[in-house]
Amino acid sequence: VTTKDILIKAKGSAPKIAILDTQKKNEALLAMADALLAATEDILEANAQDIQAAQGVIAPVMLDRLSLNESRVQAMAEGIRQVAKLPDPVGRVRQRTEHKKGMVISKVGVPMGVVAIIYESRPNVTSDAAALALKSGNACVLSGGKEAFRSADAIVKAMQAGLKKVGLEPELVQLVQDTTRNSAQELMTAVGYVDLLIPRGGAGLIRACVENASVPCIQTGTGICHIYVDKAADQEKALEIIKNAKTSRPSVCNAAEVCLVHKDIAAEFLPKLQAVLSGVGLRLDTAAQKIISGIPAGENDFDTEFLDYILAVGVVEDVQQAISHIATHSTGHSEAIITENAEAADLFTRAVDSAAVYVNCSTRFTDGGEFGLGCEMGISTQKLHARGPMGLEELCTYKYVIQGFGQVR
Amino acid sequence: VTTKDILIKAKGSAPKIAILDTQKKNEALLAMADALLAATEDILEANAQDIQAAQGVIAPVMLDRLSLNESRVQAMAEGIRQVAKLPDPVGRVRQRTEHKKGMVISKVGVPMGVVAIIYESRPNVTSDAAALALKSGNACVLSGGKEAFRSADAIVKAMQAGLKKVGLEPELVQLVQDTTRNSAQELMTAVGYVDLLIPRGGAGLIRACVENASVPCIQTGTGICHIYVDKAADQEKALEIIKNAKTSRPSVCNAAEVCLVHKDIAAEFLPKLQAVLSGVGLRLDTAAQKIISGIPAGENDFDTEFLDYILAVGVVEDVQQAISHIATHSTGHSEAIITENAEAADLFTRAVDSAAVYVNCSTRFTDGGEFGLGCEMGISTQKLHARGPMGLEELCTYKYVIQGFGQVR
Repeated sequence: VTTKDILIKAKGSAPKIAILDTQKKNEALLAMADALLAATEDILEANAQDIQAAQGVIAPVMLDRLSLNESRVQAMAEGIRQVAKLPDPVGRVRQRTEHKKGMVISKVGVPMGVVAIIYESRPNVTSDAAALALKSGNACVLSGGKEAFRSADAIVKAMQAGLKKVGLEPELVQLVQDTTRNSAQELMTAVGYVDLLIPRGGAGLIRACVENASVPCIQTGTGICHIYVDKAADQEKALEIIKNAKTSRPSVCNAAEVCLVHKDIAAEFLPKLQAVLSGVGLRLDTAAQKIISGIPAGENDFDTEFLDYILAVGVVEDVQQAISHIATHSTGHSEAIITENAEAADLFTRAVDSAAVYVNCSTRFTDGGEFGLGCEMGISTQKLHARGPMGLEELCTYKYVIQGFGQVR
Repeated sequence: VTTKDILIKAKGSAPKIAILDTQKKNEALLAMADALLAATEDILEANAQDIQAAQGVIAPVMLDRLSLNESRVQAMAEGIRQVAKLPDPVGRVRQRTEHKKGMVISKVGVPMGVVAIIYESRPNVTSDAAALALKSGNACVLSGGKEAFRSADAIVKAMQAGLKKVGLEPELVQLVQDTTRNSAQELMTAVGYVDLLIPRGGAGLIRACVENASVPCIQTGTGICHIYVDKAADQEKALEIIKNAKTSRPSVCNAAEVCLVHKDIAAEFLPKLQAVLSGVGLRLDTAAQKIISGIPAGENDFDTEFLDYILAVGVVEDVQQAISHIATHSTGHSEAIITENAEAADLFTRAVDSAAVYVNCSTRFTDGGEFGLGCEMGISTQKLHARGPMGLEELCTYKYVIQGFGQVR
């Protein structure tokens, strides 16, 4: 099947899922979960083939992400069931006004149409994305990494069997069969077929999409997250928060990469920071080098998403300079201020132009589940139309429905 | 001043206006309105020069749009004052949740940053756009049509004088000085400088922006609006609504261009329609030609925004076929169904994928003022991030602000 055929089918089936009621969608989700469990053996066999082919080709950490076992398949099914429990964003009236002539004007949540997701090797993204798309009334076209193709294909086939069981078209959830880069290019330029493209993966993939996409595309993920320690900080809190934000899971996008410290407390705070971050390589600016030892920061160290046990550390004049530094170097993901001064906190939260701005807590909370969205399709670092974690609401747009009885203007 | 210089200044001043409080912004708006009135003489003189240069160059209807007089300048000032009265979308908490660890997570409205508007000859767009941008906390870069340059320049200079009077930077509102097409191209590709580009004008301008913009861009305006007359329609209502939607102001984007009639009532309804639309040229499909006389519809007549006293008329099998026809031919602006059947109305409003979907009233209501937004910057026909009339809220995005007291994950 060509990618074009898949897109045509998705476009054809999108209007049908757009008008399904919540109960039918939930029924389909539960059937998909059941079918996934029923196909556990097939899925694990396909996964074993993927793993075998990938041995020695991809890094061990990627191999672990790729590999499935019975309990991971159960977790995927459970993930789909969780989505069934979330409120339906389609048809939700976001606003309602009455026109003076008597018409009722409602702003109503509606699906995007066809959502395409380009992702890498984690098989659970396949089922998560399909479940979120279905619940939000969208047809979805999935394009997974080639090393995970057999697994993804088995997962999609199982979900399609679930859809058929409740009388729905399998074309609502499709996997691109062409695993070359051509298909990504095709999705990016499928004007009239793809209503929203979400790339999930490394910086290279995301840049390629943002630069080449002619369909609406969401820039996700890259996080050069900053923590600014103000002179009025509770330093114990600051240490605990930085330790958490840097070391609890350094490979994720909401981990901290840069710490900026107010000059008035730098001499006191930096040695404590160094002691707390014993396993972390610090990259110091000139002022910080005068206080503690560490590797001098290179030219790009304040513009790098390390995703590792490395932290760039700088000293700033005041909160205003911290804000300016962030404006220049941030990717717009998550930033935090640690301060007991309400005025500094207020200025920071108003002036910092990122998807999530924290006062006295860890940047690691930027996550759909933590923000109460149930789950997420990725984290947007752009301003149109969704910002931060994208849940069901963010896979929707809205339309105005105007109910009248003969009004003219 | 080069366009690049203007963009650099806009980017520099955006963070300052983003954190201004409502009172200060309203003060600035009132000062802009006063300054505009005070500069009436200069503005009218500049406008007279524009008019003189445009005589014989542009169509009479365009000349009328371009020309100003004392009362039009007063209306512009009044428009700015109205914006001052609207609620401030910046800082508005759209949603608030408490995390189980105690942090408060708020989803807060924030400005886009720098909004660029490319428009044509109507001078009042200059002041409307500047007022909306300022109130929503955005710096704006205006790029007007070259035939209106002197007028727009005089208007912007007056508004800048108003800004200075209240101690604000004139760079918050700037007019592009280069009136060649180069500057439009520069705005479209000003990644890192323009956060939102809004083209207002003809189909050519909008297509050029959508195809060439690498900055986030809103597709506005083009409206091939449909009215479907169901077999269960109150035909008297239908006639009045179609007459209004077609003839009250045919040159605007929310005017109807296509009428689809259910086959069961076509023989009865079409002669009445023809009688009511005496001054309108009908373009008939094959089925309609068998009932009334008129010009046979050409190949493109069901895909044309006539903006004139012309209406394409077709006969359809049922509401489902009307929905399919609209899915294929609509620009996603505004569509209406005329029916007394609740089921047909429900299906139509759910299935038609346009910014505004009407039941038993005229498409002419698609307008920011009519929808309760106060005023508008244009009407979006795309799905990211705003759809339909764009008011102050639609010039904003949001961010999450998380207030904690030491929480880690």
